[in-house]
Amino acid sequence: MTSADLCLRDATELAHLVRTRAVSCTELLDAHLARIERINPALNAVVSLAPEHARARARQVDQALARGAPADPLAGLPTAVKDLVPTAGLRTTFGSLVYRDHVPAEDALIVERLKAAGAVIVGKTNTPEFGAGAQTFNAIFGATRNPYDPTKTCGGSSGGAAVAVACGMVPFADGSDLAASLRNPASFCNVVGFRPSVGRIPDWPVPNAWATLSVLGPIARTAADCALALTALAGPDPRSPVAIAEPGTMFGRPLERDFRGVRVAWSRDLGGLPVDPRVTRALESQRGTLAALGCVLEDAAPDFSGATEAFRALRAHEFASRYAPLLERHRDRLKATVVWNIEAGLRLTAGEIARAESARTEIFHRARRFFERHAFLACPTVQVPPFPLEVEYPTEIDGVRLASYFEWLASCYRITLIGHPAISVPCGFTDDGLPVGLQIVGRFGDDFGVLQMAHSFEQATGVGKRRPPVD
Amino acid sequence: MTSADLCLRDATELAHLVRTRAVSCTELLDAHLARIERINPALNAVVSLAPEHARARARQVDQALARGAPADPLAGLPTAVKDLVPTAGLRTTFGSLVYRDHVPAEDALIVERLKAAGAVIVGKTNTPEFGAGAQTFNAIFGATRNPYDPTKTCGGSSGGAAVAVACGMVPFADGSDLAASLRNPASFCNVVGFRPSVGRIPDWPVPNAWATLSVLGPIARTAADCALALTALAGPDPRSPVAIAEPGTMFGRPLERDFRGVRVAWSRDLGGLPVDPRVTRALESQRGTLAALGCVLEDAAPDFSGATEAFRALRAHEFASRYAPLLERHRDRLKATVVWNIEAGLRLTAGEIARAESARTEIFHRARRFFERHAFLACPTVQVPPFPLEVEYPTEIDGVRLASYFEWLASCYRITLIGHPAISVPCGFTDDGLPVGLQIVGRFGDDFGVLQMAHSFEQATGVGKRRPPVD
Repeated sequence: MTSADLCLRDATELAHLVRTRAVSCTELLDAHLARIERINPALNAVVSLAPEHARARARQVDQALARGAPADPLAGLPTAVKDLVPTAGLRTTFGSLVYRDHVPAEDALIVERLKAAGAVIVGKTNTPEFGAGAQTFNAIFGATRNPYDPTKTCGGSSGGAAVAVACGMVPFADGSDLAASLRNPASFCNVVGFRPSVGRIPDWPVPNAWATLSVLGPIARTAADCALALTALAGPDPRSPVAIAEPGTMFGRPLERDFRGVRVAWSRDLGGLPVDPRVTRALESQRGTLAALGCVLEDAAPDFSGATEAFRALRAHEFASRYAPLLERHRDRLKATVVWNIEAGLRLTAGEIARAESARTEIFHRARRFFERHAFLACPTVQVPPFPLEVEYPTEIDGVRLASYFEWLASCYRITLIGHPAISVPCGFTDDGLPVGLQIVGRFGDDFGVLQMAHSFEQATGVGKRRPPVD
Repeated sequence: MTSADLCLRDATELAHLVRTRAVSCTELLDAHLARIERINPALNAVVSLAPEHARARARQVDQALARGAPADPLAGLPTAVKDLVPTAGLRTTFGSLVYRDHVPAEDALIVERLKAAGAVIVGKTNTPEFGAGAQTFNAIFGATRNPYDPTKTCGGSSGGAAVAVACGMVPFADGSDLAASLRNPASFCNVVGFRPSVGRIPDWPVPNAWATLSVLGPIARTAADCALALTALAGPDPRSPVAIAEPGTMFGRPLERDFRGVRVAWSRDLGGLPVDPRVTRALESQRGTLAALGCVLEDAAPDFSGATEAFRALRAHEFASRYAPLLERHRDRLKATVVWNIEAGLRLTAGEIARAESARTEIFHRARRFFERHAFLACPTVQVPPFPLEVEYPTEIDGVRLASYFEWLASCYRITLIGHPAISVPCGFTDDGLPVGLQIVGRFGDDFGVLQMAHSFEQATGVGKRRPPVD
């Protein structure tokens, strides 16, 4: 088995090879480190590396397995942590010059869980400054490129994670998603990005323990690998008062499911959003796949009236809540859009925040009633295919001018508002070979159902198996 | 068995009598309606009555039982709903002139659950205007009086509920609690008021489905009766995205528990709050009860630094969020403190709200670490005994001037901030016969443990059996 072979296998399969000691963790790590060394320079997905620490950790896991210790769920699997997430002893910059040399003393909760599950952390994945924007670039590390076309963006903010996974630098990675940050880069890089229900993966440290817009989630090459990651990452923790109580082990059940007769709403534009015709073409070509699974398809979308204004206010509030203290101390070292975002948040009145919370609640209830009829909603992940690196954000789609710099992600942030689980799965390619993702949204709390549907879809299409031309 | 006998029996016992058909629902209802007619005029706890509808409902339940249908958990139990909670077809004023003649078309979720569990709703319980303030009076119905001394307040805002339960007008009632509104009236009326963990009883309709300060909960004469109510009221519902998933049936387990060796923090002042010496005396006289249960007592309290500022801002924000639209339309018909509260909320800047959320999060984590060592915290429910009806709020305690009009409830709202379950149980009386409550706080989510400890405490003291002199 060549090193490239090993690096492009599913995480689930690699975990099996480690558990049965067909491959040692050290061998697995070396294969991935070699691949990072070879492929990463052109793409810039992994921005800090800790090879020595990772080797020591891999040796530990090997020794434990040699002693006959039972294998932890992610035993020996290399992974890399988003650079917005604190890792003890490993540089964590948040993509910001302010934190250029910051080495945290403590792991975030999700990092603790990765380590406890036996994963081997090789380094950090690139992110825009403080996760702001869906283009992955920052003043410390520069831009991360799309492996299907390095002149194009990989999306963001979990862009480094998506590229690392797409190229076999790691079999899976963590990310976070407020507007679209797990789903958009997954869509742009032909991998799977799963935004779980709010509370599924407890988040700590966070400035507001009761915040419910941003969530953590996995990026992997298959839905089954996302489920594997969730077995380790999901489940309650006393540090998060909004955590869902169900244990992560529930994601270890088989993903196979008979979808005959299951009602699925199909929406090419989520109720009137402008969508690039290349995205629509790729999506429509797979509508038949869901029908072939036996799903009862109906063209329909929830009513998202008021979503833009509500999201704009709540996102700005979240931004100010996280980063206002930073603005006071380091205004000159923050990028303009970060300053703009924080100031937009600070300019909000309490009444505007309250109105946004009420509007969000109305949208939630409309969606809830919609999902009483439909078990799932299938729609575009992002309204455009990957665009040139030089374009900070699209200003027009299919002849329609966009009102703000995140309007091209409305198909994602509308789902953020209702807090439902949503996954982006590979759906096909544009004529010029750029990936397009299908977004599958489930009922609140039905994270497992969403993974099941994504699994069936990807088994039927096989488009997720087409890897980028980087070897 | 006399009517008064019947009305002062525990809800648990009444449910048994109904289930075994030793008492009919109609008989039970008539006894309670007669008692309301006799006792209520002097106290003003039940403010709207629906005797005909209740009788029809009681007959239905009787007929179902006669047919051999299995008894629902609250079958035939009379109850009254807080007048802040919409009841379909039954006047709901929110204590406000604006809604003087308001008859909702739809039941709130908690009312649906009461009905589904077989409870018989006899009417509505009094509340201050929009629940603002911990003195139960409003311009429509006037003040509710303390049954232990009608010249004193019953507390609030679930004051009508506490008085109705204390006097045997209903065996249990619902209430809600933002600052103290279940615990304070329970403490003032020698009954049990339970503020569950955030999300335990899903709340709908609410303007912000993700709000986490205000919760619903039961008031009853025993902890076991609170548990009985929770079997019907707790458990998830798709209308609340913050609901805890555990089913209500978990509260049907036996409350008996061996508390030997369980660590309990004892705090007479919750870390430096001014407390009336009469309250302290009543509390200290029961410290030995916990010791006799085998608890390992240690004088300690979490660090609540920053709680006052955080609570003030979050409470005002919540107020504005709920009632700002009302201020625009009906300013002239709102009481001055309601206007003041809404305006205080609207004056908040987004930065102040964010700082309050961060401060709340810090307090939560300090409390979490505190509760790693201690399974429970025992402290005063309220810092003062019931005060004269003419006093809107205490301005001084034990020689210490209070900074704001809700400072005498700091012992309650500090617990609100951390979202932990907290119960007020009868603890004793002042020399002039006014009730004093002990507040028992548990770990987040350990609602059942809190009920178990309250049950053991009340079994040991028996002070909750002393009923007000109203017969």
